[in-house]
Amino acid sequence: MKFICSQKNLSASINIVQKAVSTKTTLPILKGILIETCGQKLKLVGTDLEVGIEHYIEANIVSEGSIVISSRLLGDIIRKLPDADVEVEVDETNNITIRCENSEFTLIGQPSIEFPELPAIEEENIYEIPQDLLKNMIRQTAFATALDETRPILTGVLMEIQEGIINMVALDGYRLSLRQGNIKTDFNNKAVIPGKTLNEIHRILSEEENSKVEIFFTDKHVLFQMANVRIISRLLEGEFINYKQIIPKEFKSRVKVKTRDLLDSIERASLLAREGKNNLIKFSVKDEMMTITSNAEIGRVFENLRIELEGEDIDIGFNSKYFLDALKILDSDEIYLDFTTNVSPCIIKPTDTNNYTYLVLPVRLAG
Amino acid sequence: MKFICSQKNLSASINIVQKAVSTKTTLPILKGILIETCGQKLKLVGTDLEVGIEHYIEANIVSEGSIVISSRLLGDIIRKLPDADVEVEVDETNNITIRCENSEFTLIGQPSIEFPELPAIEEENIYEIPQDLLKNMIRQTAFATALDETRPILTGVLMEIQEGIINMVALDGYRLSLRQGNIKTDFNNKAVIPGKTLNEIHRILSEEENSKVEIFFTDKHVLFQMANVRIISRLLEGEFINYKQIIPKEFKSRVKVKTRDLLDSIERASLLAREGKNNLIKFSVKDEMMTITSNAEIGRVFENLRIELEGEDIDIGFNSKYFLDALKILDSDEIYLDFTTNVSPCIIKPTDTNNYTYLVLPVRLAG
Repeated sequence: MKFICSQKNLSASINIVQKAVSTKTTLPILKGILIETCGQKLKLVGTDLEVGIEHYIEANIVSEGSIVISSRLLGDIIRKLPDADVEVEVDETNNITIRCENSEFTLIGQPSIEFPELPAIEEENIYEIPQDLLKNMIRQTAFATALDETRPILTGVLMEIQEGIINMVALDGYRLSLRQGNIKTDFNNKAVIPGKTLNEIHRILSEEENSKVEIFFTDKHVLFQMANVRIISRLLEGEFINYKQIIPKEFKSRVKVKTRDLLDSIERASLLAREGKNNLIKFSVKDEMMTITSNAEIGRVFENLRIELEGEDIDIGFNSKYFLDALKILDSDEIYLDFTTNVSPCIIKPTDTNNYTYLVLPVRLAG
Repeated sequence: MKFICSQKNLSASINIVQKAVSTKTTLPILKGILIETCGQKLKLVGTDLEVGIEHYIEANIVSEGSIVISSRLLGDIIRKLPDADVEVEVDETNNITIRCENSEFTLIGQPSIEFPELPAIEEENIYEIPQDLLKNMIRQTAFATALDETRPILTGVLMEIQEGIINMVALDGYRLSLRQGNIKTDFNNKAVIPGKTLNEIHRILSEEENSKVEIFFTDKHVLFQMANVRIISRLLEGEFINYKQIIPKEFKSRVKVKTRDLLDSIERASLLAREGKNNLIKFSVKDEMMTITSNAEIGRVFENLRIELEGEDIDIGFNSKYFLDALKILDSDEIYLDFTTNVSPCIIKPTDTNNYTYLVLPVRLAG
């Protein structure tokens, strides 16, 4: 095998497929990247068996073949090469020679036959979605997945597609994040995608408005396909919680507040909350004011916010982390906080769109 | 005590004195910052008993006093406050109230009487040096101090002032870094300043050309004084190595090479060197070429550099780290590498100035 390609392209490509390479794997071959000629293109593949990423780049293919090379070492070498053409040559005994200007590396590769094949996915039932929308949907949901593996299904995000509407939902037992979008498809589907996969996809998706991503499902896998990248992930097995049941439809108090002001106030209050237990902050809503307080051994804090209140006054406690997480991903300048009682969930919603709902459970206040 | 000052100034000041506050100290009072009114100014002090930093800022002093407040908590709170006036009030029982727009914090402080006094330094025998020069001298020497405490004196940088010349020298048994500068003084002195202190000073020094720093010494301490900052550090005790004896005066081979090219080549070669033992890289200098090679189980690398050679060919091995450290802090486009034999030190010097000398010991090559 022999090919020539630009250092910039090769380095960018390694960067992309490396996101699927685990450094902790016990299978040595998985620490490598598969490089394979593919017509007049070069295919790079990285996988940790959970998620696999294939990336295609332009190259001058002199002779065909394939090889597996240590991902870390190859990435470091190519990144450090000058911005020039890189020539890669592999002999029959899997010795790789990399030449670029005045540098010559000789590395020992592994035969590509040992590299696991990514699951084949038949490309039928296309779901097409703009990349920037998917990127936003991931950003606004994946953070709310459970981190511990007690209930594996909660480490994933439910992707529910019905009649041209896509819902992405994550929840961890303390809060729930729901984002809705529109998708171009005639088909319906429901699958739970690992949060880790989505976080990697988020880093690869572009923010350009006109680029699309195509999504295909099988029973066990999902494929995200973009211009030069294919990302294939296994799905989580099991039934996702019936989240619609959890979200209250009514409220007794609706607070309208500036997102940024609330974020700043809670960030300051949480400095004391973190000194105490549970990151506890307390909201007191009365007339046109909301007071946020937090107490710790070393001191206490009062934050006063001007709000618009519709309905009853309320005193309610929260873990500040769960509030901050949501406020950081909300794009709207103003939000509603909907309360019923101080032991029932609070709903956070943007004032200018219906596409996002966040639910957070209160912390029971003593006394 | 009560004062009002701008959030920006107070936050910047905390940032500076925090550099002297250790988070690991076993003395709780040292985790605090001393805040003291000082005429119409405010003085902030942080210390870990090794180094102390005093910083003065403008403030509206309403009533005099002093207090010690948790450095981490105070820093975090002030940083998160809006860009507005901050009012701080301390009562007789050391309760601190911080008000800023809609925020009010109440913290428990500690009496300032428990805070250690910084050593008094008589401000005689002034050594005056431009801040940007001192900053550069620290950058070009402090990295070469020893990290382990086997020989404590080597964890410091020798500052030697004689007849208007200042030499700063650091060495760790494998390499030596010597930077020379000019200083405005009629006095001579010699002291070893902890590398840690110098690294903190480096972060505080400005790069403006016209700002000066005044240096004062006692037997045990050194004081660096700038417009609003005083940094006081203890000195290391003991005799520094007679470094002048170590630096060879003659050489048999002089290589002239572009700094950036050599840095890039060694960085690439070190990718393989780090896989093997000792970070070993080998230079082969012959005629107008220098080849840098490194071998590891997984592969090998050849780097070819065009050079100018004066004198004999040479093959010599080095720990790549010690070479890279020097190449990263050299400001000149071209450097000389002076060799004698492959078991004697190599000297690195800029081609355009005599103010810097780096010595690095070779690694004995097998066979």
